[in-house]
Amino acid sequence: MQHFSIAIHGGAGTLTRGMMTAEKESAYLKGLQEALNAGYSLLAEGASATEAVVAAVASLEDCPLFNAGKGSVFTADGTHEMDAAIMEGTGRNAGAVAMVTGIKNPIRLAQEVMLHSNHVLLAGEGAMAFAKQRNFETLPPSYFFNQFRFDQWQEIKGSDRIQLDHTQSDHKFGTVGAVACDQNGAIAAATSTGGMTNKKFGRIGDSPLIGSGTYANNATCAVSCTGSGEYFIRGAVAYDVACFVEHLGVDLQSACNEVIQKRLLDLGGDGGLIAINREGMVSFSFNTEGMYRGYRKSDGTFYTAIYRD
Amino acid sequence: MQHFSIAIHGGAGTLTRGMMTAEKESAYLKGLQEALNAGYSLLAEGASATEAVVAAVASLEDCPLFNAGKGSVFTADGTHEMDAAIMEGTGRNAGAVAMVTGIKNPIRLAQEVMLHSNHVLLAGEGAMAFAKQRNFETLPPSYFFNQFRFDQWQEIKGSDRIQLDHTQSDHKFGTVGAVACDQNGAIAAATSTGGMTNKKFGRIGDSPLIGSGTYANNATCAVSCTGSGEYFIRGAVAYDVACFVEHLGVDLQSACNEVIQKRLLDLGGDGGLIAINREGMVSFSFNTEGMYRGYRKSDGTFYTAIYRD
Repeated sequence: MQHFSIAIHGGAGTLTRGMMTAEKESAYLKGLQEALNAGYSLLAEGASATEAVVAAVASLEDCPLFNAGKGSVFTADGTHEMDAAIMEGTGRNAGAVAMVTGIKNPIRLAQEVMLHSNHVLLAGEGAMAFAKQRNFETLPPSYFFNQFRFDQWQEIKGSDRIQLDHTQSDHKFGTVGAVACDQNGAIAAATSTGGMTNKKFGRIGDSPLIGSGTYANNATCAVSCTGSGEYFIRGAVAYDVACFVEHLGVDLQSACNEVIQKRLLDLGGDGGLIAINREGMVSFSFNTEGMYRGYRKSDGTFYTAIYRD
Repeated sequence: MQHFSIAIHGGAGTLTRGMMTAEKESAYLKGLQEALNAGYSLLAEGASATEAVVAAVASLEDCPLFNAGKGSVFTADGTHEMDAAIMEGTGRNAGAVAMVTGIKNPIRLAQEVMLHSNHVLLAGEGAMAFAKQRNFETLPPSYFFNQFRFDQWQEIKGSDRIQLDHTQSDHKFGTVGAVACDQNGAIAAATSTGGMTNKKFGRIGDSPLIGSGTYANNATCAVSCTGSGEYFIRGAVAYDVACFVEHLGVDLQSACNEVIQKRLLDLGGDGGLIAINREGMVSFSFNTEGMYRGYRKSDGTFYTAIYRD
């Protein structure tokens, strides 16, 4: 049987042991493990990589610790605007949504765009009209309310400051993502985010943009990114990894390192990514002090981590 | 002195001689020539490639023949939603707007995002709030009214049909773009579009997406695309050209042909692109029957064309 595996991330940034309590650390690791299990159990049953990444990302969206879905940060207007994208390596189909509100699992709406529209990216009110047509429930703001996030927002509300993640630091990037390889050797990538605390002006980051924050092609790799979105857009980071694999024939880990440790840094960006190929090989790379991450493979390995070490 | 040059496109599609009157043909060629002159005269004065592509695209936006700015098509709601992006090869800075309304020259707003925000892509109401803050005028719908466009919309209004361009055919892609190389050997790319007739759901195409419809890097090339946007997104077409140049060392025309005539077709997409490098070399490639296009170079050549020939 073909090896299968899944890898996830829950954001990158200045994550150091000193900033964490043992209790908080355990909660994050548990959130990662639950998401990995949600995706892995589907893969074990023979489900597609697409189904697995959607399940894993939906699990992270439901966890209030991560900046996506339920855990999304507050915008400058006190609302929650979420973005998500999915791409499958088979046929390179893709779907994405940007600036959606009240959707429990934006990744499922992105999948719906891929499956049931002629488009790749739908945004704002139009995306909400599509959600309604596809019978997605709209949840009240109370579902997304979280005292911690609210306090973060209050701290910088009314200023021009924005925060990329759900902590006091300006250097954590709140995004979640998953990549998977299924029993047929098909791969997929999915990414979801609640954006930046106090964000204004309908800013769209890299997460919902194919080639920037999310990319998949069975012939090369599947990639999901997290970081300073504007740099990931300008560097076409997710697709850049695939190009290194395709054109230069380098192994996946070398391609990830080249893009994150060299090219992204040259541009001035920080963050990280997860990648997988159709052999089920998993690679992580990040140029920050930590990245919430993990993988689970059919060879029995189950790994979760936060710090660089 | 370094050679300088500018190239533009006004959309691609099933453009054949049989569909055109001599009068209409002249009007299109005149529109192209005016846009080329607007950009070229700046380059001749020593202006940057960025300024030249903005001037050329703004000229095309002001011409009612092309689907961008004044000539934008009607959405399903009878409004005009426009997208634009700019990227400069020096420093790889970029700015883009999506789903903006009432803005005379969306490309100038994209440039403003690049210069005066911390973001790359702003969309919808947020982008309009930014426009207001930067003192952009909002024009009434009458400025964008055009009987021809209105009739196109009436023809398919209320249906699920969409039209990619401003003609009766489903196979024309209404977008404008420019690439330029200035006297310092810096390059830039700009793209602007009025989207698809009768479009719904806040669809965002490839035009405002860096790496998909627009890309520039002095080290490789500057590219502006036009075509079936969803395929250009999935293929990361603009950046794909740059990767061929960078990784495989092929000449610009071969890179453009590989991406448009082979890779885009393999994916099922149609359209074309224009590209330039820091030597001022211009390349066109399109897999449709025609593409409104032209270039003007410091060696004295001035070329405009519509059909494949």
